[in-house]
Amino acid sequence: MGKNIYFAGSIRGGRVDAALYRRLIDYMKRHHTVLTEHVGDPALSALERGRDRDAAIYDQDTAWLRSSDLLIAECSCPSLGVGYELAYAEARGVPCHIFYDPEKTQLSAMLTGDPYFRVYPYRSEEEIYPILDRILNGD
Amino acid sequence: MGKNIYFAGSIRGGRVDAALYRRLIDYMKRHHTVLTEHVGDPALSALERGRDRDAAIYDQDTAWLRSSDLLIAECSCPSLGVGYELAYAEARGVPCHIFYDPEKTQLSAMLTGDPYFRVYPYRSEEEIYPILDRILNGD
Repeated sequence: MGKNIYFAGSIRGGRVDAALYRRLIDYMKRHHTVLTEHVGDPALSALERGRDRDAAIYDQDTAWLRSSDLLIAECSCPSLGVGYELAYAEARGVPCHIFYDPEKTQLSAMLTGDPYFRVYPYRSEEEIYPILDRILNGD
Repeated sequence: MGKNIYFAGSIRGGRVDAALYRRLIDYMKRHHTVLTEHVGDPALSALERGRDRDAAIYDQDTAWLRSSDLLIAECSCPSLGVGYELAYAEARGVPCHIFYDPEKTQLSAMLTGDPYFRVYPYRSEEEIYPILDRILNGD
């Protein structure tokens, strides 16, 4: 059974890892639904859009969070939005899995110190895919 | 009556604004208690400390969040921890006030689009203090 995945990655915090997000999303999409596919779009605007448009984004993203089976976050680029999404998902019991490259960043103690989150530091992108398989296939 | 303030600023996401955090904290401390005074410490380590030590930080910070009268966040530097803290505070009904410099960053739609948050873009640091006075003195 395909799962509904909320993929969380930085947008306005910085798009340095956008190509990685795209590859992870494409991989998960082969057998599952990624609700937030736009996070991997290299053309996605990282500009503020005004209160009304941002409110529509907020409403859509939180609706997706509530309807997702799990959240997969790539956290190598610090992001206020991803931190918010993780806490929002935790409060609603959505399982959360966090990937990051410890050579690029130091992960917040609010994530590493929270026993709710499953955290996977990785050294190379290739390490991520078999872990995703285990998470998504439940084996 | 002095208030218990949870000040949120980036630690592991980057310390570029640490001196600003310090000035804001010193200002609020004149008449109130800032529970997270260490966020303004220029010597504060931004390194991960291992699972056990990070868990102790998480437990302390979330206890402070639950006991605070309000949260004041400076969000010009993207931070996973600050995003998490904002959602955590919102879920528990703690009033949240967000300051940021729009010339330094584009704020996440998860913050600008969330009607729960009071957001204050500012052009110069001097604009912040009278707003803090209004928030903290309730006038």
